[in-house]
Amino acid sequence: MSDKKYMQRALDLAQQAKGDTSPNPLVGAVIVKEGQIIAEGYHHQAGGNHAEINALQDAEEEVAGATMYVNLEPCTHFGKTPPCSNAIIEAGLSRVVIAMKDPNPKISGAGVEKLRQAGIEVEVGILEAEAKKLNEVFIKYITTDLPFVILKNAMTLDGKIATKTGDSRWISGSESREIVHRLRDQVDGILVGIGTVLSDNPRLTTRLPEGGSDPTRIILDSQLEIPLEANLITQDSDAVTIIVTTNHSEQSKKEKLINLGVKILELGTKEKIDLNALLKELAHEEITSLLVEGGSEVNSSFWEEKLVDKIYYFIAPKIIGGTESVPVVGGSGVEKVKNGVKIIDKEIKQVGEDLLIVGYPEYNSE
Amino acid sequence: MSDKKYMQRALDLAQQAKGDTSPNPLVGAVIVKEGQIIAEGYHHQAGGNHAEINALQDAEEEVAGATMYVNLEPCTHFGKTPPCSNAIIEAGLSRVVIAMKDPNPKISGAGVEKLRQAGIEVEVGILEAEAKKLNEVFIKYITTDLPFVILKNAMTLDGKIATKTGDSRWISGSESREIVHRLRDQVDGILVGIGTVLSDNPRLTTRLPEGGSDPTRIILDSQLEIPLEANLITQDSDAVTIIVTTNHSEQSKKEKLINLGVKILELGTKEKIDLNALLKELAHEEITSLLVEGGSEVNSSFWEEKLVDKIYYFIAPKIIGGTESVPVVGGSGVEKVKNGVKIIDKEIKQVGEDLLIVGYPEYNSE
Repeated sequence: MSDKKYMQRALDLAQQAKGDTSPNPLVGAVIVKEGQIIAEGYHHQAGGNHAEINALQDAEEEVAGATMYVNLEPCTHFGKTPPCSNAIIEAGLSRVVIAMKDPNPKISGAGVEKLRQAGIEVEVGILEAEAKKLNEVFIKYITTDLPFVILKNAMTLDGKIATKTGDSRWISGSESREIVHRLRDQVDGILVGIGTVLSDNPRLTTRLPEGGSDPTRIILDSQLEIPLEANLITQDSDAVTIIVTTNHSEQSKKEKLINLGVKILELGTKEKIDLNALLKELAHEEITSLLVEGGSEVNSSFWEEKLVDKIYYFIAPKIIGGTESVPVVGGSGVEKVKNGVKIIDKEIKQVGEDLLIVGYPEYNSE
Repeated sequence: MSDKKYMQRALDLAQQAKGDTSPNPLVGAVIVKEGQIIAEGYHHQAGGNHAEINALQDAEEEVAGATMYVNLEPCTHFGKTPPCSNAIIEAGLSRVVIAMKDPNPKISGAGVEKLRQAGIEVEVGILEAEAKKLNEVFIKYITTDLPFVILKNAMTLDGKIATKTGDSRWISGSESREIVHRLRDQVDGILVGIGTVLSDNPRLTTRLPEGGSDPTRIILDSQLEIPLEANLITQDSDAVTIIVTTNHSEQSKKEKLINLGVKILELGTKEKIDLNALLKELAHEEITSLLVEGGSEVNSSFWEEKLVDKIYYFIAPKIIGGTESVPVVGGSGVEKVKNGVKIIDKEIKQVGEDLLIVGYPEYNSE
């Protein structure tokens, strides 16, 4: 029981850096001696100390013989910092409790092995499910070399994201929109289609009472239709805007956009941007998490390619109706209900007057 | 505090007859003497004793000087049974606590007045909101001469009721479908459009483990397209099937249907059935509650005419996508989000894997 309690504390510590550690995982560590927590630490940001080191440095008394709780297997490699397993061995800890092994198949288990060889008692698997959920972004990224894709949609109770005239202000309430800005603050990248740019002229920045960091903006624009005076191009923001287009778009427009500080990526042929290639490219740029705030067609492309890892569906208690109004998922859709994508592990929350459904797709194997 | 407790008991008793009392209200009564419940009763079915009479008859000891709790104002008129206010006065009760006055404006307050004139202390308004909700069907019916319209829809998370090929089996889970059969058991009438008949060949009967009563079936079929061999026509059921058509449908088909035991109602012109006239006609037949299990077009007709009183939206955790798949609400829809219908007083429940949203529309005054 108390193993779980201390591991929960390590998870809570890890969670405090949510959004700040990319491309690294969220890690917290707690050192316990004679039933008392004597030191705590967590990984604050990439390049900084790992959680284990911060916990060891936090101790004001002798840690020899104590137990460390850490939600991820301690590393054995020299990266930007020396390996944590060495530090743990040198500090003379007698027991290490780990929530989950390193998800990277190349090194998974090495830390456990090294600690055991040094005579330390190691236990693995305490609150493992919680630890995996906390680091779902890192796990996806490190095991597939692709970003973790979060699809966010705000729709009416009858499944629409805009009326037939294109009006969409405001489907969701201010509390829902604040959650979206928190998501933006936590992810590395945000993606929309050119349709959204043309109809809403969005900024795609993080606007929270306490500030926040802007994610890299990615715009799917196969024909380079974006106006040079779009907010995305003219606004002040530390983050980069990447426009993804095809090899058929106009060269002079490309040059103008590049001169305005925009990055251009050419992926795919005339009609269609290659989303799989795009995700690989983004991962290459250390974008470990991508928030897709799609319109109808971008949403359906991500669904059809089975690229969505998690959904945030905000449902506003409104009925707008209309065969010609804009459905949350367009495209061609499936032919049989049973071939639809099932959403599992749902969490349902009331957010102001809206309903928020968070869940994970379970793709049909067929 | 204890007034509320006893009134809650009266409401719970009333609730037991849900679905059985139409066109009468749900009423429960409790008699309390020296802090003890000494008798209880409720109205079981139209034509039977009112709740107050059942409670008085249930008493094994002297009720003179006791308090009665009843969720609806006792009646003063001779209907199928003698007036309850007389019986209360004759029994010598000293106090009567009432949740809500009679909603019928012609007689509202008469019972309270009569009891007070007899020297009985009367209190009105304890758990009034709960009492009004319990009798929402009766209140709508008695104050407007129209049935209370419940719109039930089962849709995917992306707002679809069928794929582009028309497939809709099964969007909702078995637990949701059981709730629908409980609704059918409680309402007086059930309505679908011809589209649903042609695509699903439904029976629209109540199928519950313990049985249940079939509501009157109402089919909107402006061109009389229903096949003579449809389940609705050939099945065994105690309930009537009414086909609503226009004055332009074929006479010989009408006659064939009438010969098969179907009732035909002609309401409206060639293209369009007059829903307002239909609801008046149904109320005239003592259909106090109508469950609309609409397809896309029937749903939008009821929304456009502002005829929905309550919704049951079952949302299955599935994404099927498709611009051509069938939206839960078709028709032309509104032009501005702010002109949509807002859903208030929502209750959200997890039903198996589905989500059930029950709520009430708040129509835009414009």
